[in-house]
Amino acid sequence: MTATHDVADLGAVQAGAERIAWASGQMPVLAQVTARFADARPLAGVKVAACLHVTAETAALVRTLLAAGAQVALCSANPLATQDDVAAALVVQDGVQVRARHGESFADYERHIVETAAFGPQGGKSWVTIDDGADLLIAAHETGEPGIRGLVGGTEETTTGLLRLRRLQEQQGLPCPVLAVNEARTERALNDRHGTGQSALDGIMRATNVLLAGQTLVVLGYGWAGQGIAERARGAGAVVTICEVDPLRALEARMAGYEVMPALEAAVRGDLFITVTGSRKVLGAEHFAVMKDGALLANAGHFDVEIDLDDLNAAAAGRVRQVRPLVHEYEMADGRRLNLLARGRVVNLAAAEGHPASVMDVSFALQALSLEALVADPNAFTPGVQAVPDAIDREVGRLKLAALGVKIDVSSASQDSYRRSWSSR
Amino acid sequence: MTATHDVADLGAVQAGAERIAWASGQMPVLAQVTARFADARPLAGVKVAACLHVTAETAALVRTLLAAGAQVALCSANPLATQDDVAAALVVQDGVQVRARHGESFADYERHIVETAAFGPQGGKSWVTIDDGADLLIAAHETGEPGIRGLVGGTEETTTGLLRLRRLQEQQGLPCPVLAVNEARTERALNDRHGTGQSALDGIMRATNVLLAGQTLVVLGYGWAGQGIAERARGAGAVVTICEVDPLRALEARMAGYEVMPALEAAVRGDLFITVTGSRKVLGAEHFAVMKDGALLANAGHFDVEIDLDDLNAAAAGRVRQVRPLVHEYEMADGRRLNLLARGRVVNLAAAEGHPASVMDVSFALQALSLEALVADPNAFTPGVQAVPDAIDREVGRLKLAALGVKIDVSSASQDSYRRSWSSR
Amino acid sequence: MTATHDVADLGAVQAGAERIAWASGQMPVLAQVTARFADARPLAGVKVAACLHVTAETAALVRTLLAAGAQVALCSANPLATQDDVAAALVVQDGVQVRARHGESFADYERHIVETAAFGPQGGKSWVTIDDGADLLIAAHETGEPGIRGLVGGTEETTTGLLRLRRLQEQQGLPCPVLAVNEARTERALNDRHGTGQSALDGIMRATNVLLAGQTLVVLGYGWAGQGIAERARGAGAVVTICEVDPLRALEARMAGYEVMPALEAAVRGDLFITVTGSRKVLGAEHFAVMKDGALLANAGHFDVEIDLDDLNAAAAGRVRQVRPLVHEYEMADGRRLNLLARGRVVNLAAAEGHPASVMDVSFALQALSLEALVADPNAFTPGVQAVPDAIDREVGRLKLAALGVKIDVSSASQDSYRRSWSSR
Amino acid sequence: MTATHDVADLGAVQAGAERIAWASGQMPVLAQVTARFADARPLAGVKVAACLHVTAETAALVRTLLAAGAQVALCSANPLATQDDVAAALVVQDGVQVRARHGESFADYERHIVETAAFGPQGGKSWVTIDDGADLLIAAHETGEPGIRGLVGGTEETTTGLLRLRRLQEQQGLPCPVLAVNEARTERALNDRHGTGQSALDGIMRATNVLLAGQTLVVLGYGWAGQGIAERARGAGAVVTICEVDPLRALEARMAGYEVMPALEAAVRGDLFITVTGSRKVLGAEHFAVMKDGALLANAGHFDVEIDLDDLNAAAAGRVRQVRPLVHEYEMADGRRLNLLARGRVVNLAAAEGHPASVMDVSFALQALSLEALVADPNAFTPGVQAVPDAIDREVGRLKLAALGVKIDVSSASQDSYRRSWSSR
Repeated sequence: MTATHDVADLGAVQAGAERIAWASGQMPVLAQVTARFADARPLAGVKVAACLHVTAETAALVRTLLAAGAQVALCSANPLATQDDVAAALVVQDGVQVRARHGESFADYERHIVETAAFGPQGGKSWVTIDDGADLLIAAHETGEPGIRGLVGGTEETTTGLLRLRRLQEQQGLPCPVLAVNEARTERALNDRHGTGQSALDGIMRATNVLLAGQTLVVLGYGWAGQGIAERARGAGAVVTICEVDPLRALEARMAGYEVMPALEAAVRGDLFITVTGSRKVLGAEHFAVMKDGALLANAGHFDVEIDLDDLNAAAAGRVRQVRPLVHEYEMADGRRLNLLARGRVVNLAAAEGHPASVMDVSFALQALSLEALVADPNAFTPGVQAVPDAIDREVGRLKLAALGVKIDVSSASQDSYRRSWSSR
Repeated sequence: MTATHDVADLGAVQAGAERIAWASGQMPVLAQVTARFADARPLAGVKVAACLHVTAETAALVRTLLAAGAQVALCSANPLATQDDVAAALVVQDGVQVRARHGESFADYERHIVETAAFGPQGGKSWVTIDDGADLLIAAHETGEPGIRGLVGGTEETTTGLLRLRRLQEQQGLPCPVLAVNEARTERALNDRHGTGQSALDGIMRATNVLLAGQTLVVLGYGWAGQGIAERARGAGAVVTICEVDPLRALEARMAGYEVMPALEAAVRGDLFITVTGSRKVLGAEHFAVMKDGALLANAGHFDVEIDLDDLNAAAAGRVRQVRPLVHEYEMADGRRLNLLARGRVVNLAAAEGHPASVMDVSFALQALSLEALVADPNAFTPGVQAVPDAIDREVGRLKLAALGVKIDVSSASQDSYRRSWSSR
Repeated sequence: MTATHDVADLGAVQAGAERIAWASGQMPVLAQVTARFADARPLAGVKVAACLHVTAETAALVRTLLAAGAQVALCSANPLATQDDVAAALVVQDGVQVRARHGESFADYERHIVETAAFGPQGGKSWVTIDDGADLLIAAHETGEPGIRGLVGGTEETTTGLLRLRRLQEQQGLPCPVLAVNEARTERALNDRHGTGQSALDGIMRATNVLLAGQTLVVLGYGWAGQGIAERARGAGAVVTICEVDPLRALEARMAGYEVMPALEAAVRGDLFITVTGSRKVLGAEHFAVMKDGALLANAGHFDVEIDLDDLNAAAAGRVRQVRPLVHEYEMADGRRLNLLARGRVVNLAAAEGHPASVMDVSFALQALSLEALVADPNAFTPGVQAVPDAIDREVGRLKLAALGVKIDVSSASQDSYRRSWSSR
Repeated sequence: MTATHDVADLGAVQAGAERIAWASGQMPVLAQVTARFADARPLAGVKVAACLHVTAETAALVRTLLAAGAQVALCSANPLATQDDVAAALVVQDGVQVRARHGESFADYERHIVETAAFGPQGGKSWVTIDDGADLLIAAHETGEPGIRGLVGGTEETTTGLLRLRRLQEQQGLPCPVLAVNEARTERALNDRHGTGQSALDGIMRATNVLLAGQTLVVLGYGWAGQGIAERARGAGAVVTICEVDPLRALEARMAGYEVMPALEAAVRGDLFITVTGSRKVLGAEHFAVMKDGALLANAGHFDVEIDLDDLNAAAAGRVRQVRPLVHEYEMADGRRLNLLARGRVVNLAAAEGHPASVMDVSFALQALSLEALVADPNAFTPGVQAVPDAIDREVGRLKLAALGVKIDVSSASQDSYRRSWSSR
């Protein structure tokens, strides 16, 4: 039998508690959901297995689920994002099964996922998953039928996770409904575009203290996160170039006023490169061969496969040294130096604090309401990836506007009637 | 029997021909489609009934269809947009049945639609429709079965038209498939956002010569067109405020950095108001009562129902005078003057030249390829509004990037394989 | 003896009167100045010789001067900018000596300047000049001593005019003080940056109806006007490139996020070129030789010498045709076509309506207050170009904020005392 | 006799050395200057007393001066900005008299300034000062004649320092020429606008991890730094409001598209306030009384007098607690909580790393070349604050463009001749 927690330092409870208190204060949308859940107890007797970044904001979500009556097990979706003091507070103050240590080995990381997935079917209750990259649900799926017994449904937080789940669905089917939190409109409005846009650049500035103004900044990938990064970088005075393989996105980028070109052309020009494609080997040997001396390489995609580290190491042949806490300098055979940030891991988490609390506020309110809907009426959903119900999305939109102090009009009866008519008057 | 054309001045052929030549030169995407159509003749023996703005760009589309082997009848989707010289050139040089006069009466406008709709079923061939506001297809539908005989399908160019068609579909069903050109991604990338964004402000500047910098500009409606207008207005130095009734759009506006507030609050502050909601009576008596002296009122929505002209006339009680060619000043009882642009009609068409040719280039390439698909395999589509096939969208994206001289990468085999896998490596 | 006016059509008074009424209503700052002048009559018995664009806004300034007690003669600083109906209204309704016809020949243009300069010394009163390009004062100077008799001072409206006057001052001295209206801070805040920024692009859109989004737009010259054009163009979705010969301005452009490169490199890339340098032959044969087919060429500088028309004509060897009212297509020997807008004349005047009234409102309030100061105490100024007194600048700033309905704080006594101290507390 | 250094930990040399190496690599402009100085030795036998932020970038400047032959003493312009490891490296590796400890008391801070000022006149050589806030030169001045013996001149890095020196100059005169590095155009292009703009927001994000998008952000003060902050904040999606007491700056802000209003009105609306006026008590009791619960208060001005801490403490009456490392929460009597960042000290230094190296690269190249000019020909300058010679400014502009890899054209002979003529052709 495994231990019910594995955290770095149980003594860090107080620091964790303060951090959670601050973050909770920044999450007014989730607070309103929590207040209702504490009354209605919609998750009474339900188990939740969650694989998320173990941060203060996540702790606030966990407390919402506990208030709703759930039992919770939590592991880390990214070892570098784990805040050990928060993990301690959740274990000691809330009795949560946390398995996460900052900087844990890949083996420990995988073991924690397996153990957390195993928490669900124990004891024969209904259970649900929360994923940030799909690791947990895929782990449960791969254990076969006993591993998914009682599994009512799940949610997924990232574009990358949805891609993986959809591939799996096409090839083997999914064992339960999965609500695509990441594709909710409120989420799009905040998380990918604004959250990643700001925090990726924040991570780069913390890692390097580079001035963005006047720099040639190359964004590889123009999905929602890439758009956010490009927009923020332009807002900071950078000369922004986009690389894309999708002609529709490439066209959108061009119409938004960006230079668009193949990666190999951009490699020659860039001072700073940010990969955010969800694909792999986006920057490799042929690009490293032509980059300027001093170029900075950062990844804002979910996995550290976008910058080809094998190629980079091969090109440097051991001439690697750490020049700032989160910067490694790779010296090429011809003397040029390329600077890799945060070892190619997702820079907004590894070099900054990830999404601001106000972003997670919306994501986690969507998560909580999605779990409530899955548990309330499992038959309303079919197995497979699907949209968060529109009513949840609109409810979160309304709560968020209220939290921002923004008031809006409602459509009049005359306007509603016009909307339902096919007359032009 | 009706005449086969009704245009203002057949003598204006030469001016029209030059105008069409210039516009065609600005439409490289359509030119590539035309070249292929002239070989393949995909519309040979097919009739096309089209209700569009009768402009030089539309004439280029008509010639693409003629090159493909079609017979064409054309009427106007907006009488103020008709370029009489272009209409003349199409009649004389191309033998097209054009029924459109600049400034024609509403009765003539409706009659022309009915006559154009009647062109389709004559002679027993297959036929298709092109709409910009859904008037033509609704007219055909309302004539009953003989009116839709041989009708293979249609396309629709506007958000407003799609709204009307979807309402009709819910309540009575549609007689054929209708491809939603306006919702294609290439179209979104250009038409609504960039085309309307630029041309609405262009129309306002031509009508008033007002300096946008420093003005408080209120955009009512934050759909695609509203977003484009807001973005361009901010880019021109205006202080932009958004009014919306949809909480999701309101949130998107706020996160994009705009003030968001109810219309009545905005009415007190604004120097310039632009309605673009697709709804009606968005600005009415209660707003006019509190606006500043000298406020400008413009509509960029499809129909002239967004600014309540009855309310405005009532408030002015006859104190109305024309102060610039496209500006009428309404004097309120307390002496404040409100300036209505282009009589509340869609300002980018009525006060400027509508969408630039490069925007229509994409729209019309989508139109042409959509008609080809409908005719090639009618059974591939079911009745009702539906998306333009993705392959068409991507093809247009590629042609447009080529026309802009933009090159992009293609996904590597390794990346394609990664995309199909659910591993994280 | 010369006639006291030379205008195109005295019958156009009514149209001119309406145009002036509308423009005056857009000029609340000047209105406040006019009200005070009508009481105080600070220019009683003074003659004003003005060389300005003969537009409705200029007419409002003329009426301010008349209200102050002045006699006025007016000629045109650019024949293509003259509004003939306004000229007529000023002659008939106000008794002003207007010498300006839209499209007048260069010979007439020069004769009108000479005649207007000669109006000053007649009759032995004090007189002042208002210039927009320095033509009037240089004409007076070149006639020698009798031509400048009684001349108290002048004002200048343009960067180009100040350049010319400073060159003249260095080499021969100036006969009187000239206040550099164009360098006042209120003017900078509106005229060059925002006025030219908007109206140059407005002119281009009217001339061509081109979509700016996605276009590569090259701005040659990054002075105040160039900055404004670049900012507006970026705000409209263009990919903007800057060419500069001044390293300091080039650096400013780069730090603002623009591509910066030599003109010959930019020539290969650009879809649209705008010259605004104040220099000559900025685009010539070597650039035309490498430009893309369909490139658009516009000038926003004061004189039509920035695009080398001799080189362009030579390259086209007669293959020139008008393709839109304000566009001439030049066909190169290899078949590429370059499109020249407004014959290379200043595009915001020649293709649009020039500065919006709200911009001229500030310029002309500065003009009026500057003339008042020159006349009130001629000995307070020395001969030569100099700044508008700071008190005038601040007064205009205050009046403009009031007109915009913007309130601001005043510095507290404690803050004033802190400002005068060298303590850090 | 005083010790020749006072640093926190001489053992930190290695960390300091690495940090200096990284920063030096980011300063290519200074590197070119250093290379020339190492040959020419323009400061041989000269003493330099410098009061600057003791950071890695400053260390690079110190090494440039040492390479030029100078002896250097250094103290801190802001105790919270001192990097103790850098201080150690300068003492041990370079023999510099460093007196600076991170977090030193105000008494120590003042003592270090006095001791550094006393370094100059010792030994009878020529000496110069470098200031960042004017403390050093004012300290020397206040010691009377012996304190300024041998003083050839100085430079000043900040707007605030120049304000203080100009007040002193008006009232008592200055003992030597002071070159206003901060007003050089290259400096303006980078330091105030882009450096402070980015680093102030960077500091706020590090201190709070707040999402800027959708926030109402109030910038008090629209000088160069305020403009930069406002521009970056808007670029990050914030709704930006400006408060100003100067009508000209207020007008500029409004024309740039910002809301402008009195501070008391803004206080009600803001989520985040940033003071950057150079004045004091900009936010005080009356503002705190109306702010929203959770409002964030940050100062980006040089001294910590802009937010009235006495008023804030009085309003909280002891209800103050630290909620994040750099955030203190003040609870008002009515329960609202205001969050003060970095104790009201300059947030870009106290919460982030201050200006990026590429910004300091230009500042410090200007410093080095200014000292060279002062020493080379002291008689070329008169006592008092004055501009950096234009030739130095342009030289730095050229070096910086080269470092960015940007090429530009040079003016042709024909253009030069046109510039010198007063003809319009």
